[in-house]
Formats: sequence, C-alpha cells, structure tokens
Amino acid sequence: MNTAPQLITVEGIEGAGKSTAIDTIAGWLIRQGHRVVTTREPGGTALGEELRSMLLTHRAEGMAPDTEVLLMFAARAEHVARVIQPALAAGQWVVCDRFVDASIAYQGGGRGLGADRVEALAQWALADFMPTLTLWLDVPVEEGLRRAAGRSTPDRFESEKTRFFEAVRSSYAQLAKEQGDRIARIDAGVPLEEVTQAITTTLEARIARR
Amino acid sequence: MNTAPQLITVEGIEGAGKSTAIDTIAGWLIRQGHRVVTTREPGGTALGEELRSMLLTHRAEGMAPDTEVLLMFAARAEHVARVIQPALAAGQWVVCDRFVDASIAYQGGGRGLGADRVEALAQWALADFMPTLTLWLDVPVEEGLRRAAGRSTPDRFESEKTRFFEAVRSSYAQLAKEQGDRIARIDAGVPLEEVTQAITTTLEARIARR
Repeated sequence: MNTAPQLITVEGIEGAGKSTAIDTIAGWLIRQGHRVVTTREPGGTALGEELRSMLLTHRAEGMAPDTEVLLMFAARAEHVARVIQPALAAGQWVVCDRFVDASIAYQGGGRGLGADRVEALAQWALADFMPTLTLWLDVPVEEGLRRAAGRSTPDRFESEKTRFFEAVRSSYAQLAKEQGDRIARIDAGVPLEEVTQAITTTLEARIARR
Repeated sequence: MNTAPQLITVEGIEGAGKSTAIDTIAGWLIRQGHRVVTTREPGGTALGEELRSMLLTHRAEGMAPDTEVLLMFAARAEHVARVIQPALAAGQWVVCDRFVDASIAYQGGGRGLGADRVEALAQWALADFMPTLTLWLDVPVEEGLRRAAGRSTPDRFESEKTRFFEAVRSSYAQLAKEQGDRIARIDAGVPLEEVTQAITTTLEARIARR
C-alpha cells in the first residue's frame, strides 16, 4: 500500500447515497491527515459543467448514444487534465462522484452501447489513469428511484425507465466482479449508519494509514 | 462507380475557399439530377452548433487537446446519426464542409496529438463510414490566412500561429498521399476560375454521371 495521493471514485445509480458517501470518505481522509478535493462528473470544470448541462437537459430531441458517451469522455478529459491530475500532483487526494465506470454502466449498459465499446473508448482516453479505489453503492433500483424522486425534479437520466437502471446496475455488478481489486461493493440498501460504517471499514482495509 | 447517394467532403485550412467549392460541388451534383444537402462541421445539428460555439469561443482558458478532439467527434457522431445518414438513406447526396480529416489534421497535426491517435478515435467513432470523395483545397498558409483575415474577426483557431497551420497543412498532405483513392488535392492557390475548373474536372473524373 502506498500513501501517495490517490483518486477514489464513488459510483451508483440515482438515490444510492453518493453525496453522503463522499462526505464520509472526505472526512475519513482528512482525519488521516490528508488534504482532499471533492469533485463530480460530468462536470468539475467550467467547460465540464456546460457539458453536464447539455447532457442532462437535451431532453426533447435526445442525442445519439455515441454522442452522449463522447461528450462524457470530453468532459472527463478536461476534468482529468485540469482538476484531478493537478490536484494529485499537488499532494491532494481526490474523491470523485462518478468516473469511468459510470460511462460503462450508463452508456455501455443502460444505453446498450456495450461495455466493450465504452471500455475501448476509456482505453483511448485514459490509458492507465484509473482510480485506485472505487466504492460502488449498490441499492435496489426501486429504492434508489424512490429516494431520488423525493429530492428534486427528475433530470433526463432520472426519467429513464426502471429497465434502464436495472441494466446500469447489472453493468456495475459485472464491473465489480471483474475488477474486485479496485471496486468494492457497498450495500446501500440498508440504513444510513450501516452504509457509513461499511464505507469506513472498506477505507480502513484498503487505504494505507500514515 | 455507383450512383447511390454519396458523402463528399471538402477540407482545407482557413481561407482555402471551401464555401465557394461547396457551391461548385452542389451545383454540379444538381445538374447531374441529384438532390443535395450541404452541411458543415463542427455543427450541422442544434447540439453540434452548441458544441461548435464552445469549441470556437473557449478562448481564455483553452481546453485540453483530448477534450477538443472528443468534442469534435461528439459533434460528428450526432451529425452522422441525425443528418448525414438520414439524408443518404433518403436518396440525397451530402456535401460537408470538413469531416474526419479535419480532426486528423487540426487536432492530430496542429495540436500535436498525432495522426495515429486521432485515427484510432475515428475508427472507434466511424468504423467504415467514410466519405467516398474528399476534395482537399490546398493553399499556402500565408495566402489562406491573408484571405481569412480580410473576412471577419479571427476565431480561436484562426488566431493560432502560422506554425500551427503549417502542421495542419502537412497532415492534410500526408493524408492525401496515403489515401489518394479517396482524397483529391486541388491547388487552391491559383485564381478562382481555375480552382472551380479543377473541382469540376475532378468531379467528372471521380463521380459517376447518371
């Protein structure tokens, strides 16, 4: 285990509890004496936020699945080059709300592009730049959507059918199975204090203390 | 030679005379009895025009080269899926102001990403969907910039240094050398009537009459 600054990502469908998890992770890292940056995708840069808005609001006409995944990776390229890599280089840990696995799950699984096709684009865009740890907050689709619905007006993705989110969840499950060294599944269908405890336990097991 | 509707693209640096060339090509095709759609990249769709504006105006902060090429291909994916393929399927010929070669020349050559890297992304995005004929309007950089400068306020690309455009021109030359079956070089440094004549001669040689 090394104590160089690392990129930790949090994944999951709507309503999985990512925001709370990010606070938990950031708090834990700060208590270890680390400096921490939290950020999100799509977004994280001025241009990325413009793209995020474009991705979440082009509701009426939609967009081609290839367009969507290329925009996601455009925003990600900017985010990596302008935010994540400079932060790591400056000695800060980065906790990111969604990253490459989201593209594989949402566009590869949900939109039906196929994980292989999105992984090929990820390889083009990121090569070996991957998170060292990814927490996948796994919640049953109905429970996630119920929580998300209580929160705000559904955006373009949240309006998708349950079947879409089942495909997203299946893709995350497949990724977690294939890349267990990097991706830790957290059961997020249980009460909040148990989720927080599971996250802390995972961090203690997987991240070196200094 | 076949007479099914085809995608014809026009390439070249700023001030090469692409707009006039497109009118010449469209006019020639119409006289052959074809229906014709003219379009441009980046752009050609509502979302593509938003991306075009983003690409041409993010001047102050710039953007990472990967971001730029991914945005170009996002706009292109939308353009192909929503405009070009439907037009071809409906029996219309498509004449497009810049296409995949522009990404190879501008981002691969000009921005220094390398032709191979952009071609790998093109393969991911387009597979075998390529123009049947590409007219590369080749003009010396100084002459092109002189013409473009007389026209309007330079945009973010036009403000680039001459060296940038020399790299773009070299990339176009390399593509024309490698893919001579598809790409025809037109000497665009000569008087307009000669350029128009060369375009017409090329169309007569390369496109089947019906």
